[in-house]
Amino acid sequence: MSLAKVSELITARREEYLDMLFTLLRQKSISAQNVGIAETAEMLKEMMEDIGIKTRLIPTAGNPVIYGEIIKDPEAFTLLLYGHYDVQPQDPLEEWLSPPFEPTIRDGKIFCRGVGDNKGQLMAQVLAIKTYLDAFGSLPINIKMVFEGEEEKGSVNLPDFVSENKELLKADLVYTSDGPMHESGAPFVLLGVRGMLYVELNCKITNSDNHSGNKGNIVPNPVWKIFDLLQTMRDENGHILIKGFYDNIRKPTDFELELIKKLPFDREQVAKQLGYPDLDMDGETYYRKLCLEPTFNIAGLHSGYGGEGSKTIIPAKAMLKMDIRLVVDQDPEDIYQKFCEHVKRVAPDIEVSHLGSMKPSRTSADLPVVKVVTEAVREAYAVEPILQPSLGGSLPDYVWTKILGLPSVVVPYANFDEANHSPNENMEIEKFFSGIKCTCHVINKLAERF
Amino acid sequence: MSLAKVSELITARREEYLDMLFTLLRQKSISAQNVGIAETAEMLKEMMEDIGIKTRLIPTAGNPVIYGEIIKDPEAFTLLLYGHYDVQPQDPLEEWLSPPFEPTIRDGKIFCRGVGDNKGQLMAQVLAIKTYLDAFGSLPINIKMVFEGEEEKGSVNLPDFVSENKELLKADLVYTSDGPMHESGAPFVLLGVRGMLYVELNCKITNSDNHSGNKGNIVPNPVWKIFDLLQTMRDENGHILIKGFYDNIRKPTDFELELIKKLPFDREQVAKQLGYPDLDMDGETYYRKLCLEPTFNIAGLHSGYGGEGSKTIIPAKAMLKMDIRLVVDQDPEDIYQKFCEHVKRVAPDIEVSHLGSMKPSRTSADLPVVKVVTEAVREAYAVEPILQPSLGGSLPDYVWTKILGLPSVVVPYANFDEANHSPNENMEIEKFFSGIKCTCHVINKLAERF
Repeated sequence: MSLAKVSELITARREEYLDMLFTLLRQKSISAQNVGIAETAEMLKEMMEDIGIKTRLIPTAGNPVIYGEIIKDPEAFTLLLYGHYDVQPQDPLEEWLSPPFEPTIRDGKIFCRGVGDNKGQLMAQVLAIKTYLDAFGSLPINIKMVFEGEEEKGSVNLPDFVSENKELLKADLVYTSDGPMHESGAPFVLLGVRGMLYVELNCKITNSDNHSGNKGNIVPNPVWKIFDLLQTMRDENGHILIKGFYDNIRKPTDFELELIKKLPFDREQVAKQLGYPDLDMDGETYYRKLCLEPTFNIAGLHSGYGGEGSKTIIPAKAMLKMDIRLVVDQDPEDIYQKFCEHVKRVAPDIEVSHLGSMKPSRTSADLPVVKVVTEAVREAYAVEPILQPSLGGSLPDYVWTKILGLPSVVVPYANFDEANHSPNENMEIEKFFSGIKCTCHVINKLAERF
Repeated sequence: MSLAKVSELITARREEYLDMLFTLLRQKSISAQNVGIAETAEMLKEMMEDIGIKTRLIPTAGNPVIYGEIIKDPEAFTLLLYGHYDVQPQDPLEEWLSPPFEPTIRDGKIFCRGVGDNKGQLMAQVLAIKTYLDAFGSLPINIKMVFEGEEEKGSVNLPDFVSENKELLKADLVYTSDGPMHESGAPFVLLGVRGMLYVELNCKITNSDNHSGNKGNIVPNPVWKIFDLLQTMRDENGHILIKGFYDNIRKPTDFELELIKKLPFDREQVAKQLGYPDLDMDGETYYRKLCLEPTFNIAGLHSGYGGEGSKTIIPAKAMLKMDIRLVVDQDPEDIYQKFCEHVKRVAPDIEVSHLGSMKPSRTSADLPVVKVVTEAVREAYAVEPILQPSLGGSLPDYVWTKILGLPSVVVPYANFDEANHSPNENMEIEKFFSGIKCTCHVINKLAERF
């Protein structure tokens, strides 16, 4: 079906669609602070119902999930759209150039907390349905929508929600629009994420700090204890020595390795973006390290005196926080167990706590459904999409791939410099509209091919 | 000369002497906050002049030194008494049971900031002169007194003062009363201190923290960088690998080793005091490690997230603070140079700053003058003194041993639980009076023997 009508409608309704987005943006929904969640869920539900989407709020142990659907024919292809209606806190307020919850247009961008992450992208999905319906009277496939309210809190209740609603969520493909596009403006089709295990280690030697002179060499130092433990966990090349750490890593397919080689990479540009001019690797190495290899990152280490000048103490205790990104098919619970066994054997007085985990995910790059989405995205943007086997970061994508056993693709709609989680979060106005268009293309193409 | 008269006078003048001490205690003299320094110096100078000590304030680049002297005969033995009139800040105020600058008697102890460290011990020296003069009309030796006002700030200007006043400070022995007695109540005769080098290391990778997912494995982690450096500096047994670190350590004499073996040690008691029940070493090992071996202590390490829960970042930077205690004849400037050379070779992008240093000191245990002081202290307390070759901590003792080339002994007068630098600092009333008596005995004995 020709989508010329869709483009026309989007152009005619620019003001109306921006108004709807701005209304949603003005409504705070900060999950970390429990601000405005119920109001936002209610507002979005009403918007969806007005469009003709059968919508309800499904309670969870945390914030409600907004579930919407338009079922044309139970036998037809079903696309499940995922997004989240909660946003990050606004801090630091003083760095915002305009009020964080008052959408403000400057230089062709909408500035507002949550505009890129994720309300602008979520509304692009919702308004694509509206546009498609108004252009053609009905949808050519079934649509299901899951908009959760706790993504910024780590999607803590999403796995349970999905497990408990497997029948409701039956679909052929899960489609997420979140995160930024490539800096060149090219769209991504992302096929998975790294998982994560977050642990905290505490080493407590004494109840209070000791004098480093009067007690020096006598009372052990908790930082040296942590160091000595970490030395047994990682060699000088960064190879992890925890027994079995690499055991379950899935060998990348030849196709995935080919994709990795083809990913665009401008060393200087990347180095500049990272704020790390010394970056010294080629594109293949960069993407292998980012997409296909686990990390062993220290997110924080705190012990003893940290103020100006000198204080002569042996710290009483040390705290280490690590987030360890995992790749398919490493399982965070399995890695946690291996981590704990290692600590128990080498430094049994160091206490390990489990602060969080997320399973990695990957959708096979050579599935027909991936090819169709890629084609639709190419048409929508008139640019070759960048097919990447995995994100470096983590999303709860495994709820679709592992719990539902579905293929899942992530196609971000926001500009690369959207500043999500930061002050002056923004989304280019045209990226909002091209997102609406892209969702329509995906729906259309899936209907053509399946 | 019999000191019966001295004891009588001390007994008769208990109220008067306590009054004088209390007057000095009420006068704040917090060098770190520059509170009451000039007033205290003036007050103490007047007290000393009233006693008949020729006293003047000698300016330094910081707080004035109070210099006093009674020269009987330029050819006679000269004893130089050292102390300090500045005190620690009072924080945390809420933990004091009585106002920190209002001397309050409870359970036979005077509670007040600075009573043990060092005003009570300094006044014991001053009042010993008064007592001796009033008992016998004159002193049998020459006395010089140096009371500085910056000990709690690291005696930053004392070395220059001593260097610039070598002629004025000519003496045969330097005698310091500071710190606590042994917990058994036995007096110490301490013959040196460990020195110190305090360094700060900064590793800055980027201007701001990076996302541990999107950048994980790409941007280096500053804590791992610090770890990797420290691994090249210290092996798993705690042996320091910096080239030349141990080069200049003076071999302890057989007599010092003998002393070490004889030092009192109750493992359980020490473990309890340290708040470290796992302490597992014998007395000889304990004192060797404390008196004769250098340390390589981490006083603080701070990087990345340290709050509740998890934050997924690669920290932009890490800061490490180390205080390295040194033993004779390690020179802090030499060790600093070797440290910097090591860092420059192994991790040239880690920045090293020099935050402070103090040379170690040691006075030979078999000098006749040490034997005489030990004898006098034994008589004063009627207890065998504990002769210890070195303190674990650091004091600016090297200004006497290195700059003036003099023997120097430290004989603490305060109770072992004086809580110096802490809330509820205190000094037992009887320890104050026995301190006065002890100084008189030392003066008397030195006069008899030299």
